[in-house]
Amino acid sequence: MKFCSNCGSQVTQRIPEGDSRPRYICDDCNIVHYQNPNIIAGCLPVWGDKVLLCRRAIEPRYGFWTLPAGFMENGETVAEGAARETWEEAEADVRELTLYTVFNIPYINQVYMLHRAHLVDGKFGIGVESLECQLFDEADIPWDELAFPSVKRTLRYYFEDRQRGEFPLHIDDLRPPVKS
Amino acid sequence: MKFCSNCGSQVTQRIPEGDSRPRYICDDCNIVHYQNPNIIAGCLPVWGDKVLLCRRAIEPRYGFWTLPAGFMENGETVAEGAARETWEEAEADVRELTLYTVFNIPYINQVYMLHRAHLVDGKFGIGVESLECQLFDEADIPWDELAFPSVKRTLRYYFEDRQRGEFPLHIDDLRPPVKS
Ligand SMILES: [Zn+2]
Ligand SMILES: [Zn+2]
Repeated sequence: MKFCSNCGSQVTQRIPEGDSRPRYICDDCNIVHYQNPNIIAGCLPVWGDKVLLCRRAIEPRYGFWTLPAGFMENGETVAEGAARETWEEAEADVRELTLYTVFNIPYINQVYMLHRAHLVDGKFGIGVESLECQLFDEADIPWDELAFPSVKRTLRYYFEDRQRGEFPLHIDDLRPPVKS
Repeated sequence: MKFCSNCGSQVTQRIPEGDSRPRYICDDCNIVHYQNPNIIAGCLPVWGDKVLLCRRAIEPRYGFWTLPAGFMENGETVAEGAARETWEEAEADVRELTLYTVFNIPYINQVYMLHRAHLVDGKFGIGVESLECQLFDEADIPWDELAFPSVKRTLRYYFEDRQRGEFPLHIDDLRPPVKS
């Protein structure tokens, strides 16, 4: 952020009085422009023994498999955002959404909130951000071609929990990948 | 938003190609300025049979009782944000945070994420945003002087769940208050 979104003046970065963090401040408007984490809402759509994955048609991780998920929008609930993203990425209608995994990713200021969901009639298409969508049995999951750690962990939890017949909420903190 | 935070030019509001919602767009930078919901992270600090409430020294709801909670910051996890807010508002150290209530409040673009938490040594002070902080037994909760519906619901759930000895995650959608 370089300019005030309210008046167009240049902002400066400093710690406001009574605060403890540097913020972007407009001295013309006397406005502090806060920047806060975003929620990524998504689903693990389930149909019988199979789960629905989408192959990404966009960067990052073009060509890798993911769960339908994206930025939660103003004016919706987390579950509404998750269902909307599932429609947009897989043209799939989901019901009975249950919050299942929460991933804090503080180094990119994101919180993933993924839901187990029933894929209505097992039907789906291919959204514009996907190259293809496909139902997978556990044995066929492309483990080495998954787009994100959040996707891999959610799938691992799901197949483990399914064996036990219990699906507790999982909350994990993800740290930056170590560059090799 | 009136001006581009990147270049200071005026933004226009329209639906970008391939999108379905109006966004603020800078035609000089070709940047779409997205606006997304915020997470409010907080705690229900518990000490024995008592819970800790704070009386607000700030608007909105000056003078009403609340649970310590506030905007999650970049670079932290939801639980870290909840613990930080509890320190800031009540000078209270909390441990063993468990996500307990999630409130979608789509009409103000907020998601509350409140945690049951152990109040270390039962100790607390008074943060700068609080007029006073106090431990309450269930019988003494000031039900008619609570600041927000999210606070009232969390307390109601807690005392009900405590009777049963089970504390499941509660997820609710809050709608705008009806003006009388
Ligand atoms: Zn300004
Ligand atoms: Zn611009």
